[in-house]
Amino acid sequence: MPESRHVFFISDRTGITAEMLGNSLLTQFEGIGFIRETLPFVDTPEKLAEAIERVNLSSAKDGKRPIIVSSLVDEALSDQVRRANALVLDFFHMFIAPLETELSIESNHAAGRSHGIANSHEYFARMEAVNFTLAHDDGASTKELERAQVILVGVSRCGKTPTSLYLALQFGIRAANFPLTPDDFERGRLPESLMHVRNKLYGLTIAPDRLQQIRQERRPDSKYCSAENCNWETAAAEKMMQRYGIMQFDTTVKSIEEIATTILMKANLQRHVF
Amino acid sequence: MPESRHVFFISDRTGITAEMLGNSLLTQFEGIGFIRETLPFVDTPEKLAEAIERVNLSSAKDGKRPIIVSSLVDEALSDQVRRANALVLDFFHMFIAPLETELSIESNHAAGRSHGIANSHEYFARMEAVNFTLAHDDGASTKELERAQVILVGVSRCGKTPTSLYLALQFGIRAANFPLTPDDFERGRLPESLMHVRNKLYGLTIAPDRLQQIRQERRPDSKYCSAENCNWETAAAEKMMQRYGIMQFDTTVKSIEEIATTILMKANLQRHVF
Repeated sequence: MPESRHVFFISDRTGITAEMLGNSLLTQFEGIGFIRETLPFVDTPEKLAEAIERVNLSSAKDGKRPIIVSSLVDEALSDQVRRANALVLDFFHMFIAPLETELSIESNHAAGRSHGIANSHEYFARMEAVNFTLAHDDGASTKELERAQVILVGVSRCGKTPTSLYLALQFGIRAANFPLTPDDFERGRLPESLMHVRNKLYGLTIAPDRLQQIRQERRPDSKYCSAENCNWETAAAEKMMQRYGIMQFDTTVKSIEEIATTILMKANLQRHVF
Repeated sequence: MPESRHVFFISDRTGITAEMLGNSLLTQFEGIGFIRETLPFVDTPEKLAEAIERVNLSSAKDGKRPIIVSSLVDEALSDQVRRANALVLDFFHMFIAPLETELSIESNHAAGRSHGIANSHEYFARMEAVNFTLAHDDGASTKELERAQVILVGVSRCGKTPTSLYLALQFGIRAANFPLTPDDFERGRLPESLMHVRNKLYGLTIAPDRLQQIRQERRPDSKYCSAENCNWETAAAEKMMQRYGIMQFDTTVKSIEEIATTILMKANLQRHVF
């Protein structure tokens, strides 16, 4: 049986930052089964006392200290959490003091600044990007396509939609996407409605056998998912992208995070993680 | 003129974790204009030397040290970045050592574990959640609705879609959403197709004046966006939710992150930030 260890993410807000940071650290340790629990909105000494009781119980039961990844901003809560019977990785505690010294000002120590709608202008611009992206999913609309910041193209089921949505939700980018279809390949030309926005096109590619697998789940045993057709479509799409000088990104081996990040870099778009 | 300071997020991979952590820290300092730049995929000494040159130039130009938030995993790169002329907040460096001691094993120090598709099973399950969520957006399909882990209900434009997408993309949750319409209110009953999944319903509410503002942008000067209609729909929706014992979440004052987090907590769903 592999070794296991409890990990608690404790936050006064959503816990998303603590969890992302913690997961990122934990991926560096193989061979241990981490049992994760997130305790969000822990913003009073009473709630924290409850959380710590849970941690201490788990410690007693397991016979080994759990790990706490904490993003508590309030100093009193931060002091309190560090008394838990656990290894406490408290990132505000770790990084706020050097930042205060460097910037020669005191921090707010006020919870709830991240992942809220405090900056409502930014928040609503991001929601607008989500709406734009959905309205321009899969070539659904060519209206205002020039307002898109990037336009992803590629064959059906190559990963355009999740990548576009990630760009919108995580980075607030207006990302349209447009399918390249057998009709386009036979004509040997990009869809007409994309010609005036050619400089915003980014191509997604995929290995034909992976494409076949994905399409098979969607429309089993169709021509659409046949090996022959998947081979032909992917090859034709790559040829078309080459002809028009469209950069290509292979979704077979890259996650939507990696593709989104690479596209933003190539497009020289200012990014802002939310 | 407010004080400004350059901030560089330097990562061997996407930089998403570094940026989220950094932004979370920076929100604690008001009155300083932070000028942010993310340098992702910095995974060789040469690329890092270039990045550091950029940081040092900015330092010389501004006459004050920039801030680096680093998530470099490789020890040699981590040593290198800490020699930059900047305040370096290096979170792997800070937290990996105590974790190694606690777990009595060495970490991989291998880049690229987070935000990749290394764990392809998890990754594809998450993509499937995105597809499910899109297919069940705005009541588009009632097929396999029982496979949804949560189903959001509320009036048109109250925030159901972005919240559902966030649940899918960030947490890998299958989140359907279904509109409550004037027809439903006149009939005084939930849509028939939701009756067998009542235990998965979560209600989103919104202040009528905010709803009016959002709808006005979409369909200017329509009955749909009139004050009278927005008042009536929001009140009728809240009444309906009360009648059926559906928990309510107000999107006027909460971000999609906050609502998603709260729903996962109430639904007792295991969460996992990606």
